[in-house]
Amino acid sequence: MPTPVILDCDPGHDDAFAIWLAAGDPEIDLRAITTVGGNGKLAHTTYNARVVAGLAGITGVPIAPGADSPMVRLLSPAVGIHGDNALGGPELPPPAVEADPRTAVELIRDTLDAAGEPVTIVATGPLTNIAMFARTYPDRLPRIGDVVWMGGSTGRGNITPYAEFNCWTDPEAASIVLGSGVPFTMIGLNVTHQVLVTPEVMARIGAVGNRTAAFGVELLSYFNSTYETDQGMPEGPLHDPVAVALVARPGLVTTVRTRLDIELRGTETAGATSVDLLGKLGREPNAHVATGVDVEAFWDLIEAAVRTLS
Amino acid sequence: MPTPVILDCDPGHDDAFAIWLAAGDPEIDLRAITTVGGNGKLAHTTYNARVVAGLAGITGVPIAPGADSPMVRLLSPAVGIHGDNALGGPELPPPAVEADPRTAVELIRDTLDAAGEPVTIVATGPLTNIAMFARTYPDRLPRIGDVVWMGGSTGRGNITPYAEFNCWTDPEAASIVLGSGVPFTMIGLNVTHQVLVTPEVMARIGAVGNRTAAFGVELLSYFNSTYETDQGMPEGPLHDPVAVALVARPGLVTTVRTRLDIELRGTETAGATSVDLLGKLGREPNAHVATGVDVEAFWDLIEAAVRTLS
Amino acid sequence: MPTPVILDCDPGHDDAFAIWLAAGDPEIDLRAITTVGGNGKLAHTTYNARVVAGLAGITGVPIAPGADSPMVRLLSPAVGIHGDNALGGPELPPPAVEADPRTAVELIRDTLDAAGEPVTIVATGPLTNIAMFARTYPDRLPRIGDVVWMGGSTGRGNITPYAEFNCWTDPEAASIVLGSGVPFTMIGLNVTHQVLVTPEVMARIGAVGNRTAAFGVELLSYFNSTYETDQGMPEGPLHDPVAVALVARPGLVTTVRTRLDIELRGTETAGATSVDLLGKLGREPNAHVATGVDVEAFWDLIEAAVRTLS
Amino acid sequence: MPTPVILDCDPGHDDAFAIWLAAGDPEIDLRAITTVGGNGKLAHTTYNARVVAGLAGITGVPIAPGADSPMVRLLSPAVGIHGDNALGGPELPPPAVEADPRTAVELIRDTLDAAGEPVTIVATGPLTNIAMFARTYPDRLPRIGDVVWMGGSTGRGNITPYAEFNCWTDPEAASIVLGSGVPFTMIGLNVTHQVLVTPEVMARIGAVGNRTAAFGVELLSYFNSTYETDQGMPEGPLHDPVAVALVARPGLVTTVRTRLDIELRGTETAGATSVDLLGKLGREPNAHVATGVDVEAFWDLIEAAVRTLS
Repeated sequence: MPTPVILDCDPGHDDAFAIWLAAGDPEIDLRAITTVGGNGKLAHTTYNARVVAGLAGITGVPIAPGADSPMVRLLSPAVGIHGDNALGGPELPPPAVEADPRTAVELIRDTLDAAGEPVTIVATGPLTNIAMFARTYPDRLPRIGDVVWMGGSTGRGNITPYAEFNCWTDPEAASIVLGSGVPFTMIGLNVTHQVLVTPEVMARIGAVGNRTAAFGVELLSYFNSTYETDQGMPEGPLHDPVAVALVARPGLVTTVRTRLDIELRGTETAGATSVDLLGKLGREPNAHVATGVDVEAFWDLIEAAVRTLS
Repeated sequence: MPTPVILDCDPGHDDAFAIWLAAGDPEIDLRAITTVGGNGKLAHTTYNARVVAGLAGITGVPIAPGADSPMVRLLSPAVGIHGDNALGGPELPPPAVEADPRTAVELIRDTLDAAGEPVTIVATGPLTNIAMFARTYPDRLPRIGDVVWMGGSTGRGNITPYAEFNCWTDPEAASIVLGSGVPFTMIGLNVTHQVLVTPEVMARIGAVGNRTAAFGVELLSYFNSTYETDQGMPEGPLHDPVAVALVARPGLVTTVRTRLDIELRGTETAGATSVDLLGKLGREPNAHVATGVDVEAFWDLIEAAVRTLS
Repeated sequence: MPTPVILDCDPGHDDAFAIWLAAGDPEIDLRAITTVGGNGKLAHTTYNARVVAGLAGITGVPIAPGADSPMVRLLSPAVGIHGDNALGGPELPPPAVEADPRTAVELIRDTLDAAGEPVTIVATGPLTNIAMFARTYPDRLPRIGDVVWMGGSTGRGNITPYAEFNCWTDPEAASIVLGSGVPFTMIGLNVTHQVLVTPEVMARIGAVGNRTAAFGVELLSYFNSTYETDQGMPEGPLHDPVAVALVARPGLVTTVRTRLDIELRGTETAGATSVDLLGKLGREPNAHVATGVDVEAFWDLIEAAVRTLS
Repeated sequence: MPTPVILDCDPGHDDAFAIWLAAGDPEIDLRAITTVGGNGKLAHTTYNARVVAGLAGITGVPIAPGADSPMVRLLSPAVGIHGDNALGGPELPPPAVEADPRTAVELIRDTLDAAGEPVTIVATGPLTNIAMFARTYPDRLPRIGDVVWMGGSTGRGNITPYAEFNCWTDPEAASIVLGSGVPFTMIGLNVTHQVLVTPEVMARIGAVGNRTAAFGVELLSYFNSTYETDQGMPEGPLHDPVAVALVARPGLVTTVRTRLDIELRGTETAGATSVDLLGKLGREPNAHVATGVDVEAFWDLIEAAVRTLS
């Protein structure tokens, strides 16, 4: 039985691949897509989700816009990586699917209510929508099977020396979700920096030959060029689909059960994810944190999913 | 024309008088009551709102429950002042009115949407519901005429040396509402500590002679006894209805336009309201802050309102 | 027996009166003066101490310069109150006394070592020197009888809404001294704002008729004018000598034993003195905090001291 | 010409090797040793410095005790790594050298004053003494050629997920020294975790055959055993002498010029060293930060130095 999934995202180049993997993988039953301000403003990430889903032929999944703004802080989109419209590079075709009239929080509520089983939320942007849901409908939290989040790091960050962009954007939201008691899995830069868009990866995707693949290659080219400029990495890390891959193939990403705390107050370190791998703090473990990924198996999964799409 | 009002509250002894004043004063058109965790847990404050409204014959106003938990922090109810059920003292009659099936955020949305004019939100508890509304429906914020909040202080606090209870409970929510751009008025302890429940006040309320008055006198007796124990004040300050009074009679509470910032990070001072009365910080004014109250006129208003109820 | 005193100060208009009171009062045995950056940079405050002592005929007391900079933060002198040279108003005569070759920390050490009894430190500026002493010679701390500090507030501040200038300038130093275990007395704005330089006070000082009095009246005129502009107080509060007066006449300033904590981290409130007058925090009392002053007796003391000087 | 050096340390097992390397290497002219509370309380680290110097025949270098306590925080010695006396393992012989009667700050001052050239300070513990010196004698700072510090990390920490022990113990001191304008070099865990005490290293040191080598091997055995228990590293990293090695052989440790900031306020991250390797913060570079070490050359240096001692 495929795992029922709500994908909360802020497309975003790597989010596009997360959407395609979630829609194209046979082990995922993608029930809803919700969008959030993060890589770009909400208007862009919602539009981009519609474009990305539409051109791949993903037409039956509702797409609802959520929060444009982090809970407490101000949004500062990742223009240097993703461009002004959050999906720089290719010419965007008109979106072939409409947005749902509900808000993200309402769509999450309705999707959980309609399912007779726990639903996994895969989140690949700031956790604002999930935190807002937790505070609005705390009684529905038991209907969430797991929150699997691409965010944070066990080591260095990418937006500041110790903070990763998704967590830095809305650390209070991450803290709320983590404190809500819902099962939580973090996949951070320490793992996603292993899945790099090499020339071989570009060639594999390109060889699939369909519309999604062609658009995807354009995305990856742009992504690699901005990663080189912004992060000194000529082969960019395809962060977001790793979170989907963990759900699709549980053994593909290795995790440890440990203590995770979010830094909310640091002057230099706000949004850092403090992962107590050595267990020195004496606190209860509260999360699964990814420590490794089967890189070959990951790209196999991506390629196979793209192949199923338009 | 009476001012349309949504009352967001956490009854609470003084909240009861806020409800009665909002319902009984001819200059207020009370459209909705929403509840929040604060003086007590949400289950208690919602139940108490129903009790307090029902026994006073306030039957046509929807009452919807909101957030049980502050946005980022944990709730610590004011048991020492308000008792275990948030309305200590009198025996509570069964509530004569039901709760609305909507959440507080939904009821606020619907009430704003249904009004053809700006609606004033009077908030007498932590600002969690209003902040959640601001983040969920930012496009509806222009429909709010003003947020008039009982909270904060220009001087000392009551729960810590510099923090007042409502602000201390959810400082992030206060910061969000203040930063949302909606007009904002703060009525803090510096003013509410002027409206003390003296023996004369007790006698005046008691002399009204109806069911609401009798219940109210029981509330005030309990309130004075806990204020003496907890705060060294044998005559307790009836904070919350001052916010309603400001809306009902604009001249009754004097305010200044100034800069207000919420302390989110202090170790000793989290939740303090930093009010720059001398204008030394060089920041733009962003709030009206109450500096005085016509005490006699206030009690006249309370007595008159109670007299209109059951 | 007069109390042996080291006066640590940053003259400063009101510091000048603290020096004169400490030197002129028969109940104080002034052993040393140390200076610190605060109201002005160290070069100014040291120079001013020499001027102020010299013109009053105080020639036998060593004056040693201490820290120009707060321990962790940057100095921002109180130019708006005290002028560019920290002693605005009168023309300054050349200083009639030299500075001691020792540092403030060394002079404090030597003064404590030479005394066969505990010595009281009266501090009327940021506590940087005293904290540096505490960290350099912790074994000498038992030789300090008390640190009596003009600083902080139980209510509002003067440099930010909740911080008083001396504490705001070096909150870490205040925290270090408070945590060092040495007896500690705080005299804050809540008390010093009661000793206002009224026209009657000006007339009394002026009538003394000596050189110190004439210079003092010029200081007070300047002080009142800047207090009106900067703080909206046409009669300025003569803060610093209240700390000397407390030592000279123990009953003149009333104090309570309570809990005092220094806010080191607040964004809006750094340097606030959190005084738990209601005992709600459940922590051990660690300081005496002034709550009142006999205003008439205070001015009597000032006048009498000035009268003994040149 | 050998480089004149003051070694500020908190022995500590790896500090012992730092002392031996500084005394035994021909390119270092060790002028003074100062001690600080860190790995152990000051009484222990001072005693240990005397023991370690004495048994190696280092008799002409003054050893002065400094601060027992960090500037603002409380000391929590590294008992789990270094044992109760900070030098667990071997039986300690009585110290063959006395402590200097001066304080660390005084000895640093005198040593700088006596030198006709800039002196390098190598610090292998919390930076408390150096910060105290900077605040006590700011006019002498130009006499320091460089502060070369073993502390911090560009990645993960060892006492908390993001803080290294020396920086975590006194982050305010690190911030003061860094902000003082003195040239500053940081050698963090990212580099020191490369110099591991392998069986081969143990054998090499042991083969030297003198008293220092025998004592050193006992230290290393203990160190490896506690590192395995406390940090999961059966081969412990010999942090401190890397700072000495950088001074002795400039090319041995590679560094980059970059921006370094110390986290003073974080709840989870206090004491983290934020190193902006990607230059994303747009601040001026203010430090050299080590990024690599020639491991073989390092051990050659250690072995050679031990060979020169008793």
